[in-house]
Amino acid sequence: MRHFEEELEQLKNKLLEMSSLVESAIYRSVTSVVEKDSEPANEVLRIEVRVNQLEIEIDDFAVNLLALHQPMAADLRFIISGIKINNDLERMGDLAVNIAQRALALIEEPVIQPMIDIPHIAALVQSMVRKSLDAFVSGDVALARSVLASDDGVDDLRSASFHELISFMERDPHNIRQAVSLLSVVRNLERIADHATNIAEDVLFMTKGIDVRHHAEARE
Amino acid sequence: MRHFEEELEQLKNKLLEMSSLVESAIYRSVTSVVEKDSEPANEVLRIEVRVNQLEIEIDDFAVNLLALHQPMAADLRFIISGIKINNDLERMGDLAVNIAQRALALIEEPVIQPMIDIPHIAALVQSMVRKSLDAFVSGDVALARSVLASDDGVDDLRSASFHELISFMERDPHNIRQAVSLLSVVRNLERIADHATNIAEDVLFMTKGIDVRHHAEARE
Repeated sequence: MRHFEEELEQLKNKLLEMSSLVESAIYRSVTSVVEKDSEPANEVLRIEVRVNQLEIEIDDFAVNLLALHQPMAADLRFIISGIKINNDLERMGDLAVNIAQRALALIEEPVIQPMIDIPHIAALVQSMVRKSLDAFVSGDVALARSVLASDDGVDDLRSASFHELISFMERDPHNIRQAVSLLSVVRNLERIADHATNIAEDVLFMTKGIDVRHHAEARE
Repeated sequence: MRHFEEELEQLKNKLLEMSSLVESAIYRSVTSVVEKDSEPANEVLRIEVRVNQLEIEIDDFAVNLLALHQPMAADLRFIISGIKINNDLERMGDLAVNIAQRALALIEEPVIQPMIDIPHIAALVQSMVRKSLDAFVSGDVALARSVLASDDGVDDLRSASFHELISFMERDPHNIRQAVSLLSVVRNLERIADHATNIAEDVLFMTKGIDVRHHAEARE
């Protein structure tokens, strides 16, 4: 049983490694958009290779834990949650790649004013990702709930930013292509926040056995 | 063991029920966009309530199967795949809700020409959803591979439709709000196709033990 505890600890550590790679990819993808620098975007593409390997490694590790130790109750739910969270993290990595690709397409375009919202949304989203993982590894229910609360903030910022970008397009049709790319960046950030929310919901389910998933979803 | 086989069959049937609800939600959401009829969109919102209940039911059922029977090898991978597929189906349901909400926002707008692509993309996406689930329940590798191949078709259609919608905005700024909503409909359909692709990848992993996930992802 000592051995099994150690393996659960290893699963946590692998998920933390995954999460820190994904957080760094998100940060770099947004830096690339805002600073019009291709280097961080290219780094995101390199990080993605490692994220993809790690996803498979973690899945195999978790499935082997289930097969070898046939855990019950809390441990079983912890491992199943780990498998789901692994999947959410990998999707976040994909979304950071989407943002990096938009950044590369936008490099030559002049800086436009509505961009100032993007670092703001990105900072909130990154803090949600970090908190959702911290809540998972420490089983911290209050922290998981604070992630759910942040999601409303992201929705409000996204909505304000959409209106701003649409007005910007209406003022001058030359802005349309660039604004459509920026809409996509914002939407990708919003989807990252949705995945962080999923993780927080899994944590609440895992720790309290309360299924909050479809309360939270009513807000989507 | 007889009993366990029956329970695996029940898991399949629940996932098929989930999938047929989700397919019907996708169909109705697109009908609502194309026919400017609010009734199918409202029906999608009702279907979503059932989809959300069923997701929790299936998760609990699968976790109980793991806890009670502690299956090995193929059965373990089948149940884990079922949990992942359940999650993908629920996300598809959310995406159909997004489309239904766009449909309701577009009801009063005049019909514009680029919409003709949407039923085309939707038909392809719906067939991917159906095939991915059929591949799962029958363990049909060739069918799963055909889903992966279709995803490229969706990407091409999406890309053509984006260019068309952007030109449409550039021609007349009055079209911008409507075109942004239609961009969102297309993007939601593309995300549904991505989930069908995930399911097909899980089927290949489950049946052959080959992990194709990150070949497919290179195409995203």
